[in-house]
Amino acid sequence: MSKAKRTELGQLGEFGLIDHLTKSIKLKNASTLKGVGDDAAVLDYNKKQMVVTTDLLLEGIHFDLTYTPLKHLGYKAVVVNLSDVYAMNATPKQITVSLGISSKMSLEAMDQLYEGIYLACDKFGVDLIGGDTTTSLTGLTISVTALGEAEADKLTYRNQASVNDLICVSGDLGSAYMGLQLLEREKKVFAGNSEAQPDFAGYDYPLERQLKPEPRRDVVELLEKIGVKPTSMIDVSDGLSSDLLHICKQSDKGCRIYEDKIPIDHTTVSLSEEMNFNPMIAALNGGEDYELLFTISLADYEKFKTDNDLKIYAIGHITEASKGCYLVTSSDQEVELKAQGWNHLKE
Amino acid sequence: MSKAKRTELGQLGEFGLIDHLTKSIKLKNASTLKGVGDDAAVLDYNKKQMVVTTDLLLEGIHFDLTYTPLKHLGYKAVVVNLSDVYAMNATPKQITVSLGISSKMSLEAMDQLYEGIYLACDKFGVDLIGGDTTTSLTGLTISVTALGEAEADKLTYRNQASVNDLICVSGDLGSAYMGLQLLEREKKVFAGNSEAQPDFAGYDYPLERQLKPEPRRDVVELLEKIGVKPTSMIDVSDGLSSDLLHICKQSDKGCRIYEDKIPIDHTTVSLSEEMNFNPMIAALNGGEDYELLFTISLADYEKFKTDNDLKIYAIGHITEASKGCYLVTSSDQEVELKAQGWNHLKE
Repeated sequence: MSKAKRTELGQLGEFGLIDHLTKSIKLKNASTLKGVGDDAAVLDYNKKQMVVTTDLLLEGIHFDLTYTPLKHLGYKAVVVNLSDVYAMNATPKQITVSLGISSKMSLEAMDQLYEGIYLACDKFGVDLIGGDTTTSLTGLTISVTALGEAEADKLTYRNQASVNDLICVSGDLGSAYMGLQLLEREKKVFAGNSEAQPDFAGYDYPLERQLKPEPRRDVVELLEKIGVKPTSMIDVSDGLSSDLLHICKQSDKGCRIYEDKIPIDHTTVSLSEEMNFNPMIAALNGGEDYELLFTISLADYEKFKTDNDLKIYAIGHITEASKGCYLVTSSDQEVELKAQGWNHLKE
Repeated sequence: MSKAKRTELGQLGEFGLIDHLTKSIKLKNASTLKGVGDDAAVLDYNKKQMVVTTDLLLEGIHFDLTYTPLKHLGYKAVVVNLSDVYAMNATPKQITVSLGISSKMSLEAMDQLYEGIYLACDKFGVDLIGGDTTTSLTGLTISVTALGEAEADKLTYRNQASVNDLICVSGDLGSAYMGLQLLEREKKVFAGNSEAQPDFAGYDYPLERQLKPEPRRDVVELLEKIGVKPTSMIDVSDGLSSDLLHICKQSDKGCRIYEDKIPIDHTTVSLSEEMNFNPMIAALNGGEDYELLFTISLADYEKFKTDNDLKIYAIGHITEASKGCYLVTSSDQEVELKAQGWNHLKE
């Protein structure tokens, strides 16, 4: 992250920094009436319903600046929120970004962070409309709030899954988690010997899943195109188990998912084997894949088969609540699904 | 902050903690269709415009837990955002609250924080609709986003002040800053001698202004009642100088404000004298008073005089930009107004 030019943030002051970081904003959405520059942004959502979601990313918990490029971090901070908007079957329109930054951070480092933020905004047609920039005595803090819109009857909640609905996922799971394990391993090697070069050969895919996740706008667009409204939907941020349990709990249902149906990328399997880790555990509990997990009626499944562009994986089905929530293994054993969430508090 | 009962957060886990903290939420606003519990909250703003604002509060920068009761902190974290919504002449309707918390924090401490959050929500008729709760390796982090609504023609921006408009403020300035100085002084005394008792006698008012600021909903209601729409409005969060300069810069105007017109509370004057501090400096640069600073046409000023409930202070007037931005002292000298913002980055 070292660069030739280094401008101390103190030279700009708060308002100079905000001007610098926001001067290139061009508003993209008709619903954005006023963006950065007043006490609050002003939005207009006539006849549509809007969704609001927020995520807080803290240095040392959610990211490690030793191996996270700032541009990737800015991009990821935005897209994890957009992923939540897509998981409502809605379209993101605006974000606010609040930052707590150390006085040791240079203007050039801030620019890299914002480069990623603006890249995500451009790619997904979202307006940055405000935020709060403050100093932090400790690490970097990033808080993003996203607003989106949808027709009222298109919104997908977590509580409408029905018995016999198919459980589907939009892509492979566990790669982001294994990418993180690889980064942590190489960090330890480097800490022991600063001459050592990190060995990431052949593992671009899990690294990319960890460092630059992509929210599945294409899946939401596909659903619109083929006329399917999932009965429930969530994005896989905490891990398949946790996120599927949210759907089951809120819908008051149970589920069966099948080990041999759960998509895991072959590179991730190789990496798991190399690291003596069970890839299925990564898929179930790893999190941060940002795939969409959703339930559909059996009748709707046919509609996916006619589309060849996007692969959707049916991994199980919804049952009565009394049947519980289980993974059926390849050897036909039933293993109860457990929520993980964060474990940091227990450490 | 020590209490008899202490429940470790690790006993609950993330989802248990969220359930615990949100189970008592009752939604108050028709525009809140879905609150906590899905990927995003869902709002409906038919035919109104909405405003969005956000603030990030970091331990050690914005608050010091040695002397800030957690309930007050929760209350303040919410109302500083509501103050921004009122400064748009809008009505706050929803908030999201994201927290980064240390694993050392007890459930009882979290409950105190949320007691203040819910108190503010109840008092100002706001729905808590979502957020993100995560662990922090360092201090407590609080990020609040507020959404509000207004008729399009009622919104007050910062860029519409006109020459000869009166500059008004809704209450006394500098008290919150002097309250903070007093708390810092007593903290140092205590650090030197843990037997010492803090000496706050007679200074309840500046302490309250610092620890429990009140956003000026009553002023927004008065404006509605007497049919006045300010030509510009901002809340005094950074200090009179900084905030008035925002209005002047965005309106492309200058200003004159008069030292002997700026309201300062007599307790705050006494405290300033005791601490060898110029109270006018506190009023100009102190910040955190959360009064509303606004400009009105001369014709509208008469309408305030017929109302006896609320005192509004006219402190100066708007000029052409070429005349600059100045404070006129009691001895008729002109002192240029300077923006302060945060200085932390230079330290």
